[in-house]
Amino acid sequence: VDPTDQRQALDLDAADPLAGFRGRFVVDDPDLVYLNGNSLGRLPVQVAERLRELVTSDWGGGLARSWERWGDLPTQVGDRLGAGVLDVADGQVVVCDTTTLNLYKCLHAASALAGPGPIVSDRNNFPTDRYVLSGVAAQTGRELVSIDSTSVGPSPEEVATACANGVAIASFSLVDFRSGALLDLSGITEVVHAAGGLVVWDLSHAAGVLPIPLDRCAVEFAVGCTYKYLNAGPGAPAFLYARRDLQSAARQPVWGWFSQRAQFAMADPYDPLPDIRRFLTGTPSILGLAAVDEAVGLVAEAGLEALRAKCVALTGYAMQLADAWLADVGVTVVTPADPDRRAAQVSLRHPRASWLRAELQARGVVVDARPPDILRLGLSPLTTSFAELRAGLDRLRAICVPAGG
Amino acid sequence: VDPTDQRQALDLDAADPLAGFRGRFVVDDPDLVYLNGNSLGRLPVQVAERLRELVTSDWGGGLARSWERWGDLPTQVGDRLGAGVLDVADGQVVVCDTTTLNLYKCLHAASALAGPGPIVSDRNNFPTDRYVLSGVAAQTGRELVSIDSTSVGPSPEEVATACANGVAIASFSLVDFRSGALLDLSGITEVVHAAGGLVVWDLSHAAGVLPIPLDRCAVEFAVGCTYKYLNAGPGAPAFLYARRDLQSAARQPVWGWFSQRAQFAMADPYDPLPDIRRFLTGTPSILGLAAVDEAVGLVAEAGLEALRAKCVALTGYAMQLADAWLADVGVTVVTPADPDRRAAQVSLRHPRASWLRAELQARGVVVDARPPDILRLGLSPLTTSFAELRAGLDRLRAICVPAGG
Repeated sequence: VDPTDQRQALDLDAADPLAGFRGRFVVDDPDLVYLNGNSLGRLPVQVAERLRELVTSDWGGGLARSWERWGDLPTQVGDRLGAGVLDVADGQVVVCDTTTLNLYKCLHAASALAGPGPIVSDRNNFPTDRYVLSGVAAQTGRELVSIDSTSVGPSPEEVATACANGVAIASFSLVDFRSGALLDLSGITEVVHAAGGLVVWDLSHAAGVLPIPLDRCAVEFAVGCTYKYLNAGPGAPAFLYARRDLQSAARQPVWGWFSQRAQFAMADPYDPLPDIRRFLTGTPSILGLAAVDEAVGLVAEAGLEALRAKCVALTGYAMQLADAWLADVGVTVVTPADPDRRAAQVSLRHPRASWLRAELQARGVVVDARPPDILRLGLSPLTTSFAELRAGLDRLRAICVPAGG
Repeated sequence: VDPTDQRQALDLDAADPLAGFRGRFVVDDPDLVYLNGNSLGRLPVQVAERLRELVTSDWGGGLARSWERWGDLPTQVGDRLGAGVLDVADGQVVVCDTTTLNLYKCLHAASALAGPGPIVSDRNNFPTDRYVLSGVAAQTGRELVSIDSTSVGPSPEEVATACANGVAIASFSLVDFRSGALLDLSGITEVVHAAGGLVVWDLSHAAGVLPIPLDRCAVEFAVGCTYKYLNAGPGAPAFLYARRDLQSAARQPVWGWFSQRAQFAMADPYDPLPDIRRFLTGTPSILGLAAVDEAVGLVAEAGLEALRAKCVALTGYAMQLADAWLADVGVTVVTPADPDRRAAQVSLRHPRASWLRAELQARGVVVDARPPDILRLGLSPLTTSFAELRAGLDRLRAICVPAGG
């Protein structure tokens, strides 16, 4: 079968059990090729409806009375996300604040629980993770050890070496944001635990596209955003997972009233709730929580195994097309060929990646570029069709191989 | 003039230059008496429209391309709020995160700038402020000195006494959340400065209802929420003010990517922007920012002087009605009679305040209660009419004076 044949894309779409989900999203412009779900997922129809209802009815009509229903949203939506996206038992996830702040809270909580030793991470980790890690290291007087991994993220062996002289906390992003490589959560967590450390995983580029063995690997803490493959909208609140047995001893440094026992007794002193709610801080975004609630429902309905299968197929097809169309024009695939090392992103390397991104956008193809030379295709299993993906790479080929060339 | 005469309320409404603003808000149920603007302001029509447009067009249609316009919203909306609500020059306000987190950031930044000495606050300060203050005190090794003020908040003299042995930071809420008393920002700031301390003001219950002399008093830091009298919706992002001359030396502890110089260079090490943006952290809520943007525009259009005059009139009328109708049935006014000591809230005391709140709600009057015995009326100058206020207190009278009584 020739992967570049249009019929191949149509056959793949016809056989896709998740193809129907695309109709559950707003797709105004059928000619737009949107391969940027790694940045901002498309708008689910039911999120738009829920937000309209929330604004006009719950806020406009119910006004402050609606707080009776809003007050528990951070844990209700947390449980729904926990069950549908992370496959963990209730009572271990809250949705609130940002990934940056949730990481800050988890790292400080982990540091207070951990023994002596450094914080270990990866020099290729996502920038906000790197910045928060360096801040927490400075604030806790711990050394920050940075693994100089290859561009596809550290292996368990590299992490084991970095932890050989002791480790308090190790923190990584499950998917490398540049290469799209999927790290070995199970293997890395195991070597960190063996070295006596706790792990804090950032699942931002993994949530909603594959099963994540948090429970089986006894991961201590995890955070992630909801606006990428979870499709909850720009700046929607992030999630925070803390393993149940650690919660009552865990302390995070932002002591806000949503974490207080008997919040409306409004009494001193600060006495945080004994459960996952101690990771809450101030008044949460109700619009954001409602959006996450609806968006996560779509992921749960599709199922993580089906989403995973679709991602393997989409990323595999993207790599086949890249090999067939782009290898001769200086575009190389960065993402690992092994499906076990990929999530939902395929990264291409070209010295003029930023220019290619702009040229693609002018032709109705949205991707993003990351310095110095990476073009990222974020393939969203609920919304990206094989035909859409093929059209995007076809237009990329046309830019790289000018007419007559 | 008999204040309880219905004609009095109608005359006051007829003479109110801000009366037309009520029509700019969603008022579905004309019989509902909503006196809870201190908790959650009503829905401005243009906020609902902007959110609908943002969701369907900017997110649904523009998708990640819209980040080109969204990226600067925290400072754009901050400047708009700074000009219209705080009357300060551009470049000193950001809108992001929650009041709790912004207070945490300001207190840590202030602590790093301040000399030795304790943190001074008030035992009656709002709970989340109390909790954050105690956390920051513990984290910075500073003593937290709590003034045992009366229920109407500390006077400059009480603050001066508390600072007599030195002060690093003093932090108060400009309006006491229980009594509705307006503190003397100018006098308190002056005595703190004279004692060598920095001030961090929480303006949550003051923003949008009166001019606040931040500039004239050289206030160092201020924070506040946007969902009360600013009407930006449940859990909308908070604001943070940092005086311009302090910004380049100020450091806050949550080192996120939105505060990084050359954010999309995605490079190490953390190097925060030299201006107000160093107080940003993670990806901000775009829906929340759009709501604040529109809502703040209404406040700016009305003007702080006119809003202040309306609040003085509304709170004065509420107190007249309470004196006439409720004094004999065990309901007393807690809020100071001096207009210079009031903002937009009138608090009533009754031993069964919580029961009264529920009875009122059953009769279509929304207020709130705070332990142990306070009933709060939050009078929103853009939306509360004198007739609405009179109807609410009339129904309260009917509960307190049962038929035939």
